[in-house]
Amino acid sequence: MSTDTSASAQLPANLPIGVFDSGVGGLTVLRALRRALPAENFLYLGDTARLPYGTKSGATVARYALQTTRVLVDIGVKMLVVACNTASSVAMPGLAEAYPGLPCTGVIEPGAAAACLSAPRGRIAVIATGGTVRGAAYQAAILRRLPEATIATRPAQLFVSLAEEGWIDGQVVTDIARRYLDPLMAEFPEGGPDCLVLGCTHFPVLAQAIQGVLPSGVCLIDSAETTANWVAEELGARGLLRPDHRQGGDGTGAVTGAVTGSVTGLVTGSVRFFATDDPDRFARVGEIFLGEPLSPSDVTLVDL
Amino acid sequence: MSTDTSASAQLPANLPIGVFDSGVGGLTVLRALRRALPAENFLYLGDTARLPYGTKSGATVARYALQTTRVLVDIGVKMLVVACNTASSVAMPGLAEAYPGLPCTGVIEPGAAAACLSAPRGRIAVIATGGTVRGAAYQAAILRRLPEATIATRPAQLFVSLAEEGWIDGQVVTDIARRYLDPLMAEFPEGGPDCLVLGCTHFPVLAQAIQGVLPSGVCLIDSAETTANWVAEELGARGLLRPDHRQGGDGTGAVTGAVTGSVTGLVTGSVRFFATDDPDRFARVGEIFLGEPLSPSDVTLVDL
Repeated sequence: MSTDTSASAQLPANLPIGVFDSGVGGLTVLRALRRALPAENFLYLGDTARLPYGTKSGATVARYALQTTRVLVDIGVKMLVVACNTASSVAMPGLAEAYPGLPCTGVIEPGAAAACLSAPRGRIAVIATGGTVRGAAYQAAILRRLPEATIATRPAQLFVSLAEEGWIDGQVVTDIARRYLDPLMAEFPEGGPDCLVLGCTHFPVLAQAIQGVLPSGVCLIDSAETTANWVAEELGARGLLRPDHRQGGDGTGAVTGAVTGSVTGLVTGSVRFFATDDPDRFARVGEIFLGEPLSPSDVTLVDL
Repeated sequence: MSTDTSASAQLPANLPIGVFDSGVGGLTVLRALRRALPAENFLYLGDTARLPYGTKSGATVARYALQTTRVLVDIGVKMLVVACNTASSVAMPGLAEAYPGLPCTGVIEPGAAAACLSAPRGRIAVIATGGTVRGAAYQAAILRRLPEATIATRPAQLFVSLAEEGWIDGQVVTDIARRYLDPLMAEFPEGGPDCLVLGCTHFPVLAQAIQGVLPSGVCLIDSAETTANWVAEELGARGLLRPDHRQGGDGTGAVTGAVTGSVTGLVTGSVRFFATDDPDRFARVGEIFLGEPLSPSDVTLVDL
């Protein structure tokens, strides 16, 4: 999260919150944000032309993050949420430098904070994409809070493909989950870790299958939920929440909405979706992660 | 394959053959090319910063193909092999227009030709990425040769991830293969299709597992082999084979080689590898597809 707040006081509370990811996985974060902040408006940009970020170098991903953020900032946002673990692990310093007045959070710091709170014995397992694991950002964020933590991490790239294919349960998913998680659990003798961090925004849709192969008592940390709470607190502390956000909104948001009123009865905030490639696929696969219908006509194509 | 040969007579036979793919899958084609043409030199470019192509729109992939080809042409090549099914399905007309004198082939026409030769009853199944299936290029290429063919196609995106993860056998692979292939086989009552086309350059490394779940008598079409034969014939017909290609080479190729002499005892041709991101990952995952060791120091990073 950016610590430079110099310009944020001038950001109108009615601006939308900008959210970006390499693709559709960040829609799990958007879903949690909309639950936590039902009256807020959102812009969501999926950089689908260049996904996945998880297999690319840090320098490349950091450059992509600056480009996607530029699109959102040019439209106008009051806060930026990097809803992508890989980008969160490498791009935050560059974003804070480029946009010093913009409140900004990734998903790793909130996820690490939640993991530490859920690890009474300090035993934390993390699954993520290869890029996130290699970047070691979760390890660093956890150890800053809990220096005595025992951490084991493992890349689980196939979970991304399973989630995008919509294969979220059944024997194949269980077998793959075992193949990734059994060796990871074995790194924690005596009952496994305290918690397992789902360190990729694709993974929450597989949560049930993943939980099913874990030793009992290991809790799952879904950074989507914790990030949403973090954003709500940050906006509240800065006086940037929409004035009507507790009353369910006034319906006068300047952002025209592709999806409105469908997460809870109280939602009046809207979302505008952008993708850098193929709105059809974005809508088709995105529904799995957003948990509600999406039409290609809801998605605006942008070129980066 | 380009039919415009106006300028090819001026291309020196000693130039390398340019091969490109979105990533490492095309290395299965390179491997077959090196077997078929052991004395030839090759440039291989993997556009790893922008993979996968299979989930992107045709217009985007066609644009990427022009950019990667430009890199190879600027270095100097006597023929271009588009070792990527998705690019082969959408980019060939644009490439032929941009480089009318350059002999050029994708993998779809050779694959379709081989399928028709292996389908006495005209019953052909195709698995590929979503992009290739949606583009319907295999269907078109088969029907041009065999208008009465019965064709069924299915995207099998998870095979790409399995191959890149190096999970090429075992129960998980078999289960996934069944989940994709059983419904596809069921579209051909009375004994299944005559053949199954592996319509993605990643798939040949899974050939054994795939064959294991097919009804007996269904043969696999690996377009890498057929493309390599096609290239050999095309170069021979144009007088563009290296003069020494049957004698095992003279070792004087202008292209310095990262990999030499390791496919067969006769190989003296060399390969230069280029990737648009992360040579480490290219080398690590690429070994699976190339079938021989690859070091990150063999791979030159290029920016597109």
